[in-house]
Amino acid sequence: MLRALELATHGPATGVNPRVGCVILNAHGDVLAEGWHRGAGSRHAEVDALSKLAPGGARGSTVVVTLEPCNHVGRTGPCALALIEAGVARVVYSVTDPGEHSCGGAERLRAAGIGVQGGLLAENGEAFLGDWLVAARLGRPFVTLKWASSLDGRAAAADGSSRWITGPDARLDVHRRRAACDTILVGTGTVLADDPALTARGADGGLLPRQPVPVVVGRREVPASAALLHHPQQPLFFDGLDLPGLLTNLHQRGLRSVFIEGGPTVASAFVAAGLVDEYLIYLAPTLIGGPRLAITDLGVSTIGEQRRLSIYSLDRLGDDIRLVARPRTN
Amino acid sequence: MLRALELATHGPATGVNPRVGCVILNAHGDVLAEGWHRGAGSRHAEVDALSKLAPGGARGSTVVVTLEPCNHVGRTGPCALALIEAGVARVVYSVTDPGEHSCGGAERLRAAGIGVQGGLLAENGEAFLGDWLVAARLGRPFVTLKWASSLDGRAAAADGSSRWITGPDARLDVHRRRAACDTILVGTGTVLADDPALTARGADGGLLPRQPVPVVVGRREVPASAALLHHPQQPLFFDGLDLPGLLTNLHQRGLRSVFIEGGPTVASAFVAAGLVDEYLIYLAPTLIGGPRLAITDLGVSTIGEQRRLSIYSLDRLGDDIRLVARPRTN
Repeated sequence: MLRALELATHGPATGVNPRVGCVILNAHGDVLAEGWHRGAGSRHAEVDALSKLAPGGARGSTVVVTLEPCNHVGRTGPCALALIEAGVARVVYSVTDPGEHSCGGAERLRAAGIGVQGGLLAENGEAFLGDWLVAARLGRPFVTLKWASSLDGRAAAADGSSRWITGPDARLDVHRRRAACDTILVGTGTVLADDPALTARGADGGLLPRQPVPVVVGRREVPASAALLHHPQQPLFFDGLDLPGLLTNLHQRGLRSVFIEGGPTVASAFVAAGLVDEYLIYLAPTLIGGPRLAITDLGVSTIGEQRRLSIYSLDRLGDDIRLVARPRTN
Repeated sequence: MLRALELATHGPATGVNPRVGCVILNAHGDVLAEGWHRGAGSRHAEVDALSKLAPGGARGSTVVVTLEPCNHVGRTGPCALALIEAGVARVVYSVTDPGEHSCGGAERLRAAGIGVQGGLLAENGEAFLGDWLVAARLGRPFVTLKWASSLDGRAAAADGSSRWITGPDARLDVHRRRAACDTILVGTGTVLADDPALTARGADGGLLPRQPVPVVVGRREVPASAALLHHPQQPLFFDGLDLPGLLTNLHQRGLRSVFIEGGPTVASAFVAAGLVDEYLIYLAPTLIGGPRLAITDLGVSTIGEQRRLSIYSLDRLGDDIRLVARPRTN
């Protein structure tokens, strides 16, 4: 399985499909063939490995694969069927397929009389698949909502000025976390007000190696002079606030995580729609008052409707406070 | 000095004047007389001790007193003069008199040729005088502003309901801190909206031994049915928001600390006036949105005018966060 996980790393780290590796062994444990998935539209890892054997060459073999063989016809046929037809004796996999349409492969193999064992090195397998797995289980990208505010919940002074509320440590932390996400999302209001570059930068101001794709939401026009149009990644534009549709669109593009940076209208819309998986809140030790709130309206009319969270971590970052929270599940 | 501090404890714990103790020793270190202050209008500790000696009995003695002998004529004469007239040889004190009108006693004694030593066991002396000393240095009571809000700065849902945003641990902590203050202050808006009892209660709902004096600020009429009218302490009422005048009034009554409990109008007025010495903020892991803010307007028009604070402590209290902060001094 460790060799299968190693093979999986040959595949592309982003995209709609997961990275999967496969090793086919004979009864003595000798390796007959290896394969891996090269991305959406290409052969799945199991079929890739089978293709390296002469017809009948996999008969009675043991197939070791990092993800449960799929059971659906996409751009390629179901791997479970390919393995049954190849006459393999045993299938060992690490992670159960979380896909709504692709799952059930293990069941189908068992029904065909093949010995199936799942969960081998599952922890390694799940850690390796990371945000692909989370996104697959959610059926959409993992959504992080970030905001920075004063202790009284303001994101700017009355005139809109907001540089700076948080200190350099907090701001650097934001850039590091931007770089770990596939996309960074803002509303057109923020583009017009702040003209953000939406890049992930280091302490020296230089671009970090990995850059999130800028996603702009809203009906207002983005000026041709907007800084984000010079982003190293091609920005995506969505007019209107069909948030589930937007997330599905991003998911289909193989974008597995969204980092929402504002402003208040977009942030509040995601919270109100129950589409935030993680809150990343920077609180600066300052009071501002006035009309510029980090969160506007959530449709909470009475206290029983408040959105309770669970705090995952609470840290001091320079003078500021960093709080990571998730929606309370019970 | 430890004996003098012990004598001081015989005085009243509240009131305009500090608790002071005094011991008069002869050249061999034998105690000639002891005295303490019994509250405003009565003899100061030094004079109380001198009164126990025959005329001339203190000549050449050493006077040990917990607070620098006063140098002003209030309802009693200046102690410094009394000591000079008594012919004492040496005065040892712990804490320097912080009073604008009463200080300068040490200077006057020295000018009369008396040996003076200040600062003996100053830490014990200051700790003993506690909030009296802070209030004396400020020339007004020490002001703590408390609020509880969601992470987005709301103190209630749109319909005004707010029970509960914070959990039982945070609420119990508030009651404990109420009991440690001389007064608890609210606006008439809070009285009309929430009808608070303004008592300090324990986990079982019973009254704690010490209760702050309720102070109600504002022009709206308090109904005869208001719960606070049954408070064990007689409430004080101030119409209008002359905050410095209000604090001076409380200070003159010997009330040394104010615990502001709301609502948003009163809280914001104290912040805007720069009259808050300590912030006690409870943040619940919840989001509410909407119009009911813990802090309304502070007159901050641009970001350079924001009110920066220094965080003194940051703790988890049950599910909630407790933050203690003070205005940044630099």
